[in-house]
Amino acid sequence: MAFPRSNSIFFFTFLLFAILINTAISSRVSSFIKLPTSVDESVSSSLESYCASWRLAVETDNAGKWTVVPSQCVSSLETYYDKGQFDKDYSVVAGYAYAYAKTITLKGDGKDAWVFDIDETLLSNLEYYKAHGYGSEPYNSLAFNEWVLQGTAPGFAASLKLFNRLKKLGFALILLTGRDEVQRSVTEQNLLDAGYSGWEYLLLRGHEDQGKAAAQYKSEQRSRMVKKGYRLHGNTGDQWSDLQGFSVADRSFKVPNPMYYIP
Amino acid sequence: MAFPRSNSIFFFTFLLFAILINTAISSRVSSFIKLPTSVDESVSSSLESYCASWRLAVETDNAGKWTVVPSQCVSSLETYYDKGQFDKDYSVVAGYAYAYAKTITLKGDGKDAWVFDIDETLLSNLEYYKAHGYGSEPYNSLAFNEWVLQGTAPGFAASLKLFNRLKKLGFALILLTGRDEVQRSVTEQNLLDAGYSGWEYLLLRGHEDQGKAAAQYKSEQRSRMVKKGYRLHGNTGDQWSDLQGFSVADRSFKVPNPMYYIP
Repeated sequence: MAFPRSNSIFFFTFLLFAILINTAISSRVSSFIKLPTSVDESVSSSLESYCASWRLAVETDNAGKWTVVPSQCVSSLETYYDKGQFDKDYSVVAGYAYAYAKTITLKGDGKDAWVFDIDETLLSNLEYYKAHGYGSEPYNSLAFNEWVLQGTAPGFAASLKLFNRLKKLGFALILLTGRDEVQRSVTEQNLLDAGYSGWEYLLLRGHEDQGKAAAQYKSEQRSRMVKKGYRLHGNTGDQWSDLQGFSVADRSFKVPNPMYYIP
Repeated sequence: MAFPRSNSIFFFTFLLFAILINTAISSRVSSFIKLPTSVDESVSSSLESYCASWRLAVETDNAGKWTVVPSQCVSSLETYYDKGQFDKDYSVVAGYAYAYAKTITLKGDGKDAWVFDIDETLLSNLEYYKAHGYGSEPYNSLAFNEWVLQGTAPGFAASLKLFNRLKKLGFALILLTGRDEVQRSVTEQNLLDAGYSGWEYLLLRGHEDQGKAAAQYKSEQRSRMVKKGYRLHGNTGDQWSDLQGFSVADRSFKVPNPMYYIP
């Protein structure tokens, strides 16, 4: 291969130019235009849109009774948790709860109360659900029970903050869970390890509560608290069955949970 | 500038290599890493995330009483409507409502009923709200009344479909609106123009209902229907005050409306 001098200069100029053009085009394309990488992108965009609607329907209790997360929405849920939108959604609800709590004048008799559910409200079982298809697999009570007995569920940053702020305001904190009485000590220890402390009551399902629907059981428990003189100003739960029924709190705060439904 | 032959080959090889490396890096970066193009992108992404959380809090009734859409979320709402996610969200709720309706065995006495709100449930005032900052401007009853009197609000495709499907199933359709009795004829004509027909009742606010909170007024109206022997199987509304209170329907369906709140 021979390169006469004039050709060398020509090639050098041409190649420099080519590098510049190449760089300019690449950066333009990536900055301003989001090109579909394949036909799958429009399908995935339509699926993403459906899964967002499904999630909204679940959170607003429009979906009614449902058993498992639609398999096509698993990756959408994974993104929802991994990219931080779940945490943001939770924080905004907790912010509204605290803003409301601050408007209440406490009587100072220790009876101004706030009710918290535990699973997916104070403690996160996301690690378990990640290993079980984000709620797309049918509920496995044995496997879930094993997970609960490990006692390693972390708290939500936003719920721990809300819990401590309400405690500081002087609310009596009532923990009301669908967990069984036999899980009391592991639940207590798990809550303490996750940073929660100073609750007034930890109410679990006793013998007489077996087989009761969640809303019935929880309404009865709240009713007992009301009879003890507690004023239930707020209630935080991830299920509508934590919040509805009778003896409901003055305000209910539904924190997000698109992974399972408890009737 | 002098280029001896050996140097020419060296430069040629070097530049070719540089082009290849440059191309490889550019395409890798744009395929796998979404780099912020400017500081604004992370701000807008964080704002988008906040506005999504705000909208979820509103739809789940966690936000409580609110007056105007936060100004920083106006463009997010514009996108929500323009890009079709609102329609998708509405359709999914309507789909759940119809799926539930099909499970009901009608008695054939004409008393199996479904309650519909009108504004933002059967008729869309989006055109009005687009001209008024998507709910970011304080409510202007005079301007809104003028818009209502034009009688040009279109229906939602999904609500018209649901309405007709329920009619076909044999449900008595009860329209229950916060609009005033003086707006009866313009409302009737607007509904007909939008494609709705064959409702059983169109209930508007009379003299005795002035000043009543929406949930109270609507509960009283539903209660009257129940006393007439109607079985309220379903209720569709864009406000929680359409759906809560007393004499509530067996199932309530909250269709999306992030533009305003009626206590």
